[in-house]
Amino acid sequence: MPAPLRRALSAAALTALLLPLGCSTALTTKREEEKLMSSSDDVSKPAPRWGIVIHGGAGVIKRESLTPEPEAAVRAALAEALQAGHAVLAKGGSSVDAVTAAIRVMEDSPLFNAGKGAVFNHDGKNELDAAIMNGRTREAGAVAGLHHVKNPITLARAVMEKSPHVMMVGEGAEAFAKQQGVELVPESYFFTEERWQALQRALEAEKKQQEAPPEPGQPQGPSTFYETPDGSDHKFGTVGAVALDQSGNLAAGTSTGGMTNKRFGRVGDSPIIGAGTYADPRCGVSGTGHGEYFIRYGVARDICARVEYLQLPLLEAANQVVLDVLVKAGGEGGVIAMDSQGNVATPFNSTGMYRGYMGPDGVPSVAIFKE
Amino acid sequence: MPAPLRRALSAAALTALLLPLGCSTALTTKREEEKLMSSSDDVSKPAPRWGIVIHGGAGVIKRESLTPEPEAAVRAALAEALQAGHAVLAKGGSSVDAVTAAIRVMEDSPLFNAGKGAVFNHDGKNELDAAIMNGRTREAGAVAGLHHVKNPITLARAVMEKSPHVMMVGEGAEAFAKQQGVELVPESYFFTEERWQALQRALEAEKKQQEAPPEPGQPQGPSTFYETPDGSDHKFGTVGAVALDQSGNLAAGTSTGGMTNKRFGRVGDSPIIGAGTYADPRCGVSGTGHGEYFIRYGVARDICARVEYLQLPLLEAANQVVLDVLVKAGGEGGVIAMDSQGNVATPFNSTGMYRGYMGPDGVPSVAIFKE
Repeated sequence: MPAPLRRALSAAALTALLLPLGCSTALTTKREEEKLMSSSDDVSKPAPRWGIVIHGGAGVIKRESLTPEPEAAVRAALAEALQAGHAVLAKGGSSVDAVTAAIRVMEDSPLFNAGKGAVFNHDGKNELDAAIMNGRTREAGAVAGLHHVKNPITLARAVMEKSPHVMMVGEGAEAFAKQQGVELVPESYFFTEERWQALQRALEAEKKQQEAPPEPGQPQGPSTFYETPDGSDHKFGTVGAVALDQSGNLAAGTSTGGMTNKRFGRVGDSPIIGAGTYADPRCGVSGTGHGEYFIRYGVARDICARVEYLQLPLLEAANQVVLDVLVKAGGEGGVIAMDSQGNVATPFNSTGMYRGYMGPDGVPSVAIFKE
Repeated sequence: MPAPLRRALSAAALTALLLPLGCSTALTTKREEEKLMSSSDDVSKPAPRWGIVIHGGAGVIKRESLTPEPEAAVRAALAEALQAGHAVLAKGGSSVDAVTAAIRVMEDSPLFNAGKGAVFNHDGKNELDAAIMNGRTREAGAVAGLHHVKNPITLARAVMEKSPHVMMVGEGAEAFAKQQGVELVPESYFFTEERWQALQRALEAEKKQQEAPPEPGQPQGPSTFYETPDGSDHKFGTVGAVALDQSGNLAAGTSTGGMTNKRFGRVGDSPIIGAGTYADPRCGVSGTGHGEYFIRYGVARDICARVEYLQLPLLEAANQVVLDVLVKAGGEGGVIAMDSQGNVATPFNSTGMYRGYMGPDGVPSVAIFKE
């Protein structure tokens, strides 16, 4: 087992591997059970069913090619992230703190496409984006095009809390990071052999494709330049978290390295408030998938708009957008979502989505496939 | 009269100055009259009431400090932009073409904070953002942090039509511009003495402010670093256009130089799809104002969500968001909006908003204040 995988398999995290794996519906059903239990204690004013839901990316994840060791490592890392967020919430901390804590664990893990382990862009660099939003205040912070910030979610949070702005990009964002004392690292910190090889394969595939004349006016869909050479097992390993704290306040955050071999300063949906990240007093969402579709359809905001204006249950709103609107448009991916009652939805239209949930009982529920 | 102002006063554009100036309600009333007229021709299937609505920025614009010559020049430039968009629509062209044509006129005019005449950032550079969205297909293109692209709206459109991406920023976006043959200019092209002096005043004010110790954790609101020294007559001179073509398709676009003395690679709402720019088959919006609020409240998307989900008339939806939601949040600015029946709304909560409308009759209606 490679060292990073072994390190990720902490004893506590191993608990997750022994649990039955909930799919999106199963998670929600579990929550429904808890609702019944908690509301029987105090019918007039049920305590907020606080908790945290996370994702570690969605895409074509084939059961047969996900061998036991990497699968165990990913499950353990997700459980560790859940525990980090849960620890904050359990002692009465804020949902913003919980989201930050959970995402930092996944950024620090080489298993996800965020922070350490991010994919490489066309120029062989790691280029990181992140966003966070406080549902109660509707304050938000977003950063894009980072090369030296160890934890982009922490910089997004500094933008939210320590600047009059919402979005900062590139060198300017890194100058702000320096000013705020946010940890900077050399570019080499982000290097992983697996992601480097993925870039080499993408560059080779691109070279082959360029021998054929390009189609004029490419549509706004997946370009093979950005996929693995055989189109299989590509995944969008963006990470995200949505939390509801004991005061009933929601927060959502997302962090990503974008797409392998991306160029032209491409920015995906993660740092776009309303597209890949959104929270308001009723509803919080973090997305993962083909970012261009998430931006065009304003996926995160649309789910919450359906909750607010159509008064749909969260699960129905999330399912409509991910399993109907996005599917019809051709946009692959998924979301995690939570409402102010603590209901959870994790729909995805791809083969798999790394995801997990932890409520007051502190038991991690982690899943990858539709089960 | 300075040469740029004189050049802007074309004979045709002068027509606008003679017209009574419609405010948002007056514009809509005018449209209501046209609806009655056009629907009498074919009650079963009224022709789409095609047209174009534009803005040239909102903010504190004091009547007493807007002297006749600059006012006439701005009105003439708005009329010229309307005519450029109208010319496209009148011959059956697309709303995307009309929006592009109208915005290019305003980008080329030194009177607006977009393209030539953009404000200077903290480093004394012009840094341009733009976005465009095709309501019919929901395709979108956005660019940010440009220093050499003469017409950012044209590059946003190239991103939409010639790339698989939605958003490109900085040097990467300019590399794409070069590849696509989009016109590049030296940085000096964007220089105007007025904007340069505005930066010098902002820098001086900032220096004075820095002598007092800064408040920890500035709120996400206006920073005096970005305003004129006395807080008066600041305006957000972003430009935008929304058009409905004869086929009943909507498009929206926005272009801006951002805020004077901005730093840290700040990106405002203009290139954020759903915040400052949005179009779908029912509704198109372009915003201008304090961008951070427009992003946090997803202003453009929210107006269209209220039209779609609450089935509100466009004017009511736009008024709710701009005159209620934004006002309560403390967000200054305005929007132009159009629906698929050709109804128009132009609410703003600031003292003034440069705006104009032109329908099938080709008569420009231009306004600045609430009248």
